[in-house]
Amino acid sequence: MNGDPILLTPGPLTTRLATRQAMLRDWGSRDPAFVALTAELRARLLAVAQGEATHACVPLQGSGTFVVEAAIATLVRPADKLLVLANGAYGERIAAIAGRLGRPAQVLRWPEDRPVEADRVAEALRADPALTHVALVHCETTTGLLNPLAEVAQAVAGAGRHLLLDAMSSFGAIGIDLRSVPVTAVMASANKCLEGVPGLGFALVAREALGRAAGVSPSLSLDLHEQWLGFEKDGQWRFTPPVQVVAALVEALRQLEAEGGPAARLARYRENFRTLLSGMRRLGFELYLDEAVQAPIIATFRMPRGRPLRFASFYDALAARGFLIYPGKLTRAETFRIGCIGALDRRDFERLLGAIEATLAASGPAA
Amino acid sequence: MNGDPILLTPGPLTTRLATRQAMLRDWGSRDPAFVALTAELRARLLAVAQGEATHACVPLQGSGTFVVEAAIATLVRPADKLLVLANGAYGERIAAIAGRLGRPAQVLRWPEDRPVEADRVAEALRADPALTHVALVHCETTTGLLNPLAEVAQAVAGAGRHLLLDAMSSFGAIGIDLRSVPVTAVMASANKCLEGVPGLGFALVAREALGRAAGVSPSLSLDLHEQWLGFEKDGQWRFTPPVQVVAALVEALRQLEAEGGPAARLARYRENFRTLLSGMRRLGFELYLDEAVQAPIIATFRMPRGRPLRFASFYDALAARGFLIYPGKLTRAETFRIGCIGALDRRDFERLLGAIEATLAASGPAA
Ligand SMILES: Cc1ncc(COP(=O)(O)O)c(C=O)c1O
Ligand SMILES: Cc1ncc(COP(=O)(O)O)c(C=O)c1O
Repeated sequence: MNGDPILLTPGPLTTRLATRQAMLRDWGSRDPAFVALTAELRARLLAVAQGEATHACVPLQGSGTFVVEAAIATLVRPADKLLVLANGAYGERIAAIAGRLGRPAQVLRWPEDRPVEADRVAEALRADPALTHVALVHCETTTGLLNPLAEVAQAVAGAGRHLLLDAMSSFGAIGIDLRSVPVTAVMASANKCLEGVPGLGFALVAREALGRAAGVSPSLSLDLHEQWLGFEKDGQWRFTPPVQVVAALVEALRQLEAEGGPAARLARYRENFRTLLSGMRRLGFELYLDEAVQAPIIATFRMPRGRPLRFASFYDALAARGFLIYPGKLTRAETFRIGCIGALDRRDFERLLGAIEATLAASGPAA
Repeated sequence: MNGDPILLTPGPLTTRLATRQAMLRDWGSRDPAFVALTAELRARLLAVAQGEATHACVPLQGSGTFVVEAAIATLVRPADKLLVLANGAYGERIAAIAGRLGRPAQVLRWPEDRPVEADRVAEALRADPALTHVALVHCETTTGLLNPLAEVAQAVAGAGRHLLLDAMSSFGAIGIDLRSVPVTAVMASANKCLEGVPGLGFALVAREALGRAAGVSPSLSLDLHEQWLGFEKDGQWRFTPPVQVVAALVEALRQLEAEGGPAARLARYRENFRTLLSGMRRLGFELYLDEAVQAPIIATFRMPRGRPLRFASFYDALAARGFLIYPGKLTRAETFRIGCIGALDRRDFERLLGAIEATLAASGPAA
């Protein structure tokens, strides 16, 4: 392959060269220069969601799942009860985390192609006064479906409960305004719409909830309260931080600002998605979701009807042309996914469509 | 400052440029190229400790503490009991982890300047048949003390118990031969003697113990059994891997081999340490530990007697000259630490000594 492949994945994804170049330096993790970098990281992440007045940013080493687990372990007490809203694999993962931790939980399910419904959430909360927290996945990366955050947040706050939001694949592109949308904790990671490299997650947690969370987590590593205290004490991380990953994310956040913030980024992703969708339709592929519930983050396509296309050989053929697509994660339908996020624009998608067209031509005519 | 500072720290530390340059590429985490990189990572880590016939390498996202916690959570069952051998902060941290997880534990303590004694371990194991596992910190980074691994391992195996070894600051330099030293699990991380960048840890676990560990961990993220199953199934990570950190560690492991393996690396660190110690003595500093128990990994020095030297100003003066030293972590004595590890050789330590000498001269004559 000439040059690096282009990643059409939900993250790790294609980053800007300047982001990767920010990793060329060694940092002392307790040095004032790195303490300042950490402070900039926390401030910028909080600002992305306008959480300055109410929330605190708690970065955590590890992948996104680690910070989702840490939020549940730290904020949901053994005597609390979690309502998990699930219409895909990441909702199910939250239920599995609660199960492992031994936290009481109830799962409310929708089909993978249907959004969560706020009225069913309100009803469930009315029916069970023991429920204290609700977990929602903002963009279900399983399919690319966007769940109705504002409505669900209203229903949860209206019932006096706490919302925990897995915003892994939306944060940085799909706006979350913590001044108007009541969310107790937003969890996300470095390597999706923020276009950083993988290696850390973070939670934006209502300070009031953090303050009450001492000693709740059964895990030393996955304790957002202690992690927060560490930052508040001396600006340092409790345990060794991934210094280069932090430096890359700060650089990526500066670029997000330079691009015009989440709204501008969303506009670029939307153009990527529109380019992809119209081209794929022309080539005979069908979008799995109804467009009305589709986020411009990652698109799930059905394998074309009447064409003997196997994912593995389709993947290899596109990889040989320099494009890495992503497998499907659906329980039922035969699908594959193409991410619209990362440091890519419509021209990359036009080139991708050319590669797909050539691959189809090489694999013979449609049956 | 001209150029990057030199890190005299226990990690993150000074890495080779080639190691950092390995991070300049984006990787698809499910792409065959990254699957191959992960396989190379696991094989090379296992080979460092000659564990191929008996152990499996399970890398884990996060810092070193995460993999220590994961090993305890996965291998020590609720009905088991852990004996923690503690002569520093990292032994105490293992006790804290067990406490949080609710695993029964007993702590056997020594002063911070004294090594763990195998005969006291044997005695404790005889006295309490409920004890099933023993946790030892190989090099106690708190002071730089090397605990007697071979003797303790013999005592533990002789009593038919399992040894869990925190080899965070020894792995890659101080030899651990799993063919002759009975250890059930060795935990370490990328960013100390392996000279990678921070962002992942790993455990080398006896396959026989891993096989019996299904469903034991109360944490989804910190479950070494499931993490291992993921690698065994399709060579992929269960959750998003820090792809650049992995690439950097593979590059660092290739360099470790090129340098001549752990023995050659230890010889370099020894030369660093000897250079440092004789120079520091000449300048009036005293080593905190008895040389007989000192590992050539990190050295703890007492603040010089009769000299009004405060750590903060000493640190700043050396930082201005391009050298970052490390604070002390002792509960009693006023000390600071200087790491001997990383991509440094005796000339770097000679330059450091020059900077210390100049700093002392600038701060006035000894009282
Ligand atoms: C919505 C959502 N939640 C959680 C995760 C888990 O993140 P990670 O793979 O970093 O653990 C992902 C990853 O794709 C995701 O899309
Ligand atoms: C012996 C030992 N154990 C555990 C740790 C914890 O590792 P981390 O800071 O990566 O969590 C360290 C870190 O210095 C260590 O030296």
